[in-house]
Amino acid sequence: MIMKNFALLSLFVLCALWADAQEPASYVNPFIGTTNYGATYPGAVMPHGMVSVVPFNVTPHKGNEYSNTDSWCSNPYVYNNEWMTGFTHVNLSGVGCPDLGSIIVMPTTGELNVDVNEYGTTISNEKARPGYYSTKLNRYNILAEVTATMRSGISRFTFPEGKANILIDLGHGLTNESGAHIKRVSDNEIEGYKLMGTFCYSPQSVMPVYFVVRIKRDNMQSGYWKFQDKLPGARHNWSSTSNTYKLYKRYNKELSGEKIGTYFSFDATEGEQVEVQVGVSYVSIENARENLDAEQTNLSFEQIKKQAYVTWNDELKVIEVEGGTYDDKVKFYSALYHLLLHPNILQDVNGQYPAMESDAILSLDNQDRYTVFSLWDTYRTVHPLISLLYPEKQLDMVRTMVDMYKESGWLPKWEIYGREAHVMEGDPALIVIADTYRRGLTDFDVETAYEAMLKHANTVDDHFLRHDNDFYLEHHYIPFLKDYDNSVSQALELYVADYNLAMMANEMGDKATYKKAMQRSLGYRNYFDKEFKLLRPVTEEGKFMEGFDPVQGENFEPVHGFHEGTSWQYSFAVPHDVKGLMRLMGGKNKFVQQLNKCFKDSLFDMSNEPDMGYPYLFNYASGDEWRTQKQVHDCINRYYKNSPDGLPGNDDTGTLSAWLIYSMMGIYPVCPGDMNYTLSSPVFDKVTIHLNKEIYQKEKIIIEADRKSVNDIYIKGIEINGSPYNRYFISHKDLIELGHIKYKLGAAPKQ
Amino acid sequence: MIMKNFALLSLFVLCALWADAQEPASYVNPFIGTTNYGATYPGAVMPHGMVSVVPFNVTPHKGNEYSNTDSWCSNPYVYNNEWMTGFTHVNLSGVGCPDLGSIIVMPTTGELNVDVNEYGTTISNEKARPGYYSTKLNRYNILAEVTATMRSGISRFTFPEGKANILIDLGHGLTNESGAHIKRVSDNEIEGYKLMGTFCYSPQSVMPVYFVVRIKRDNMQSGYWKFQDKLPGARHNWSSTSNTYKLYKRYNKELSGEKIGTYFSFDATEGEQVEVQVGVSYVSIENARENLDAEQTNLSFEQIKKQAYVTWNDELKVIEVEGGTYDDKVKFYSALYHLLLHPNILQDVNGQYPAMESDAILSLDNQDRYTVFSLWDTYRTVHPLISLLYPEKQLDMVRTMVDMYKESGWLPKWEIYGREAHVMEGDPALIVIADTYRRGLTDFDVETAYEAMLKHANTVDDHFLRHDNDFYLEHHYIPFLKDYDNSVSQALELYVADYNLAMMANEMGDKATYKKAMQRSLGYRNYFDKEFKLLRPVTEEGKFMEGFDPVQGENFEPVHGFHEGTSWQYSFAVPHDVKGLMRLMGGKNKFVQQLNKCFKDSLFDMSNEPDMGYPYLFNYASGDEWRTQKQVHDCINRYYKNSPDGLPGNDDTGTLSAWLIYSMMGIYPVCPGDMNYTLSSPVFDKVTIHLNKEIYQKEKIIIEADRKSVNDIYIKGIEINGSPYNRYFISHKDLIELGHIKYKLGAAPKQ
Repeated sequence: MIMKNFALLSLFVLCALWADAQEPASYVNPFIGTTNYGATYPGAVMPHGMVSVVPFNVTPHKGNEYSNTDSWCSNPYVYNNEWMTGFTHVNLSGVGCPDLGSIIVMPTTGELNVDVNEYGTTISNEKARPGYYSTKLNRYNILAEVTATMRSGISRFTFPEGKANILIDLGHGLTNESGAHIKRVSDNEIEGYKLMGTFCYSPQSVMPVYFVVRIKRDNMQSGYWKFQDKLPGARHNWSSTSNTYKLYKRYNKELSGEKIGTYFSFDATEGEQVEVQVGVSYVSIENARENLDAEQTNLSFEQIKKQAYVTWNDELKVIEVEGGTYDDKVKFYSALYHLLLHPNILQDVNGQYPAMESDAILSLDNQDRYTVFSLWDTYRTVHPLISLLYPEKQLDMVRTMVDMYKESGWLPKWEIYGREAHVMEGDPALIVIADTYRRGLTDFDVETAYEAMLKHANTVDDHFLRHDNDFYLEHHYIPFLKDYDNSVSQALELYVADYNLAMMANEMGDKATYKKAMQRSLGYRNYFDKEFKLLRPVTEEGKFMEGFDPVQGENFEPVHGFHEGTSWQYSFAVPHDVKGLMRLMGGKNKFVQQLNKCFKDSLFDMSNEPDMGYPYLFNYASGDEWRTQKQVHDCINRYYKNSPDGLPGNDDTGTLSAWLIYSMMGIYPVCPGDMNYTLSSPVFDKVTIHLNKEIYQKEKIIIEADRKSVNDIYIKGIEINGSPYNRYFISHKDLIELGHIKYKLGAAPKQ
Repeated sequence: MIMKNFALLSLFVLCALWADAQEPASYVNPFIGTTNYGATYPGAVMPHGMVSVVPFNVTPHKGNEYSNTDSWCSNPYVYNNEWMTGFTHVNLSGVGCPDLGSIIVMPTTGELNVDVNEYGTTISNEKARPGYYSTKLNRYNILAEVTATMRSGISRFTFPEGKANILIDLGHGLTNESGAHIKRVSDNEIEGYKLMGTFCYSPQSVMPVYFVVRIKRDNMQSGYWKFQDKLPGARHNWSSTSNTYKLYKRYNKELSGEKIGTYFSFDATEGEQVEVQVGVSYVSIENARENLDAEQTNLSFEQIKKQAYVTWNDELKVIEVEGGTYDDKVKFYSALYHLLLHPNILQDVNGQYPAMESDAILSLDNQDRYTVFSLWDTYRTVHPLISLLYPEKQLDMVRTMVDMYKESGWLPKWEIYGREAHVMEGDPALIVIADTYRRGLTDFDVETAYEAMLKHANTVDDHFLRHDNDFYLEHHYIPFLKDYDNSVSQALELYVADYNLAMMANEMGDKATYKKAMQRSLGYRNYFDKEFKLLRPVTEEGKFMEGFDPVQGENFEPVHGFHEGTSWQYSFAVPHDVKGLMRLMGGKNKFVQQLNKCFKDSLFDMSNEPDMGYPYLFNYASGDEWRTQKQVHDCINRYYKNSPDGLPGNDDTGTLSAWLIYSMMGIYPVCPGDMNYTLSSPVFDKVTIHLNKEIYQKEKIIIEADRKSVNDIYIKGIEINGSPYNRYFISHKDLIELGHIKYKLGAAPKQ
């Protein structure tokens, strides 16, 4: 268990606390990434769980330095904030836009107050471990503990003696959508739905989350509340409830509105524990209740808490590490933990889920339906890593994507609860599908998948994935058309997508598509400006855009041609043709010089996905591989920490965490669709990756490091299965089939 | 059919229009009372219909001189207003507080605009007759026609060629409650509920009205809208929908919120007629659909319109009148029409209805469940008149009241949709029950009814009907305790209630209760101040309140001891003991002098219920009966007109209309519970009241007037069944059994 003030504890005390230190789950620190815009949360959740129970502390209030009135506040919890207003039950981790962060349960004591601006409290003694979070609510002297199953949450509140209240607040949270419906169905149960959506301000991506809340206590008073808008004119003065929170003390039928909720009040005995169960569904209220009943009936809070922990531990055991420091292990397993938060299960226990972009309710039997696909982010590291570690999950994810195509006519880009949010650039689903297929995970509807890929690539009409596609198909670049467009960023994404389409076409024996797509994938060369040795926006006429500034775009400054970044941060982002880029730049030395400048002059951004591969690019320059080893270790140590600011930015549903996992193991996938890993020095002395034998026919991969000191980060030699290996690349197939890499490390670069 | 600009039509044209002029329904002018605070509406409704389809024109806008931002705007329609924003489907007629006036259907043309402040229109060519209303929507060149069944409405819109829209707006109206839920169930049907309530600002009387809306057209686009509150902080700038109406073009699942609605859009051909059906229920969405299907399946708009008219005509035929002017007949039948708008049917076609003050859903087979009991108003004229004309309805109303007692523990005072709104004074249900019973309508659960009456009277704890009851039971008056209390008004109501309790106790053989209740009913004498010859508030110590001003309280000015009126307006309101009051005042002459002053000095208020009996009180002063005849005719002519300002104030769910009906017939019930009518000169030459023979054993009552001119308003002589009659009172029993009154009238008072 990780305590918020763990930094104050000596290693000795920590070791004493972690009697179960050999268990991977014990290393997880859920507080990592909860500040510095990491946007993770410390709440209780199961791997890929539909429900997460998270302390919500971003209501604007004294003590909250960052709140949901700030731009881009996308997280329900911020480590440095002080004022907490309840536990949310649906949440996103590591994303850059607000959504979900709602269905709030808040315990209080004393006189009933339902105003979110007034009922909050400071908290202390926060503790978190996989599947469990607890804290003291200082103002109310309540101990709050929460845990979760896949589709439900349970909170246990320990009250002091006196009047106690449990508030179910549907009127605030992160989502930009508003509106909810509640109905009391018994003395201790309510049901309803809360509208969620408009992720990244995409106004039409809206979805109700249905819920059932059950309080495991009898003899309570209860009622609703609603903030009443100010009545017009003189009516305001006649009404006792205009422009204030109205309490409905006798009304128990359906209630609808914006700022609404339900309260339960009772007289608590000293130390009385009351449990609050919340079941959730994206299909119906009935399913929410079925989910809750199926997953919590006959289970105590303690049993659910234990079940969550054991489940996490089993998932995390997929990789065993030896050596490294305690913090290294915490960083590593916390990253693996973060990898497994998204995508999430969408189907209910009965198999039902909302179809993509329609009102249909569909059903699955022996497959998981996933949601929350942040594919622009995750195609780079998350999905290749899930393919390696959890291929059965990756297959269901790809099956889900293909089903989405069948349901809506398109593969997803940024999908959430069955709705496309149209966030970021490119056509990333093609990449994930080709990469997955090429890793040998072919047990999905390949024919339909390939049909979808072709449709994406060849549809000429403007569509949400490939705007200006007619121009692109002819000229192989996206023209700069207006100030602050993202033309180069969009094109760079299409190049990787088309490279993957080519790879897939090759697998399908579709030579014509292979050839055309491969040609298009090299279109980045249109943007290469020899003067700057960088990519530069190009006009429809094929001329470089005037007024180019290669460092414009830092810190979200508006920039022509690039999305959330500078030309420097994009110019090396052609992972499928690094050698070609090298040639354009004038050969190896010029390439190394230019790449080096990125790191020396702080032009590199660890938190921006197109840059994630940069540290590994020195491996393409024979003799300069030591620079990769140096930069990778530098990034691991500089940007990733066992502390709340331990991520360099939005985790992007595990993308940054997956980079860390690869990098700490000493392998990195050079480009999705390209089946090569490139090699660098691992952090650990020994890494054992347990493979899914049914899919990979092998049991494990072992990566060992022979080092004298933790400062030995430079590769002196490599052995594969005992034989010397003089390359810095190894194919996915070889890695799995040979299964044993041994690095000999030293303190100085190999000359 | 009555046209809004009927005043411009000559009598000749009117006669031509009313080819069916012999039919009572043809005389009804639904525009009477739609201004001058009459608070009636011209919309389509069935007798006691749950649904009424009413043009809503009180949205604040240029051209609307009176809107729902004004205090006490309690009506969905005001004659003089110009700006109309749709048709509401649940409405109250003639009340003094806003509620219902919601579930709005509005047709428009051209670009979709869902903002109620923008989509309205002026209207012209309004026509209304029982069960039908039509108008031209000027801005859109749409002809709108509406009619209704008991539990559903149907609108027929005739569109010009071009883009047409039908808006279902749940975000505005009269009710002070907010919040609604919608779900699209097919391409042309939505379902949902809208919260109604807080009648007269009673915050806990809340009820959902469930609805189904079906558009009888295919090939429409549709979606939802919601006004989005301003997002906090920077989020506002990122969002395209913050602080504006958001259109949901692709979302069709459940929607909740405050200012929400659904639109349907299509390309209309020239003159295309589209019908919109709305089914309503107070029980469930399923029942709303069942109501709609049961009442409209296989019926065309024209058939429903005709059915409504025929139903009204049959109801109104209960009284036939001969003689009088055309306007007299219009005033008379319009009053009878208004009498039959409330109370309303509450049960669905399957018999289900929401129980009084609980969440239970109960069911009835062979009885109507009524709602909207404005009993402080209606006990005086409405219920005695319904007992005479429609005794089977009155029995179901009393059965409903007794059932409410069984369900909630109390009889109603101001009940709406199964909730007590706690409006006005006193304990009026006792009066209605005793009066009904004494008129021979005894086929209800009398035992339980009497038990309820005793509970009301004898419960000493403060309760909502009889506060300070312990003091009252001992001292027989309510003390003046604080400024602007309603102590005298409350006590005056209890005196009439206790008089009725005494009458009922006598019927039950409960001598002890009879004696005590009768004693209490005379407690008004405590308030009689000989100095003023008026009632005056009295303190707990039994002293007259200091600073008494007998004219304080006019025009809703705050006043000590009286509710919405002056001491003058209450001092004669002891209808059960007029002779006693006369003695207190010093005898007949002093009494007549004081009563005369009311009329001479304009101290009388025709629109305030306690004053309604004043014109008839001269009949208690032998020799001065001509003053009653004069005052009654004066009131009929001065306050009641065949014009929108044809009611002197709130019709109070038919109370003022019922006064007019009695007065134009020449009989008036002196006091509920007292079985005497007092007699005055009728307006008509012959009135035939058709009796329910099963209940009254007689077929009809005939009241004739023998006059030479319409100015012959003074009674020269009375014959009952051909025999001279020298009294100005006749018992209910005699009226029915003898059945024939003949007035001989002349132009000058009888000396």
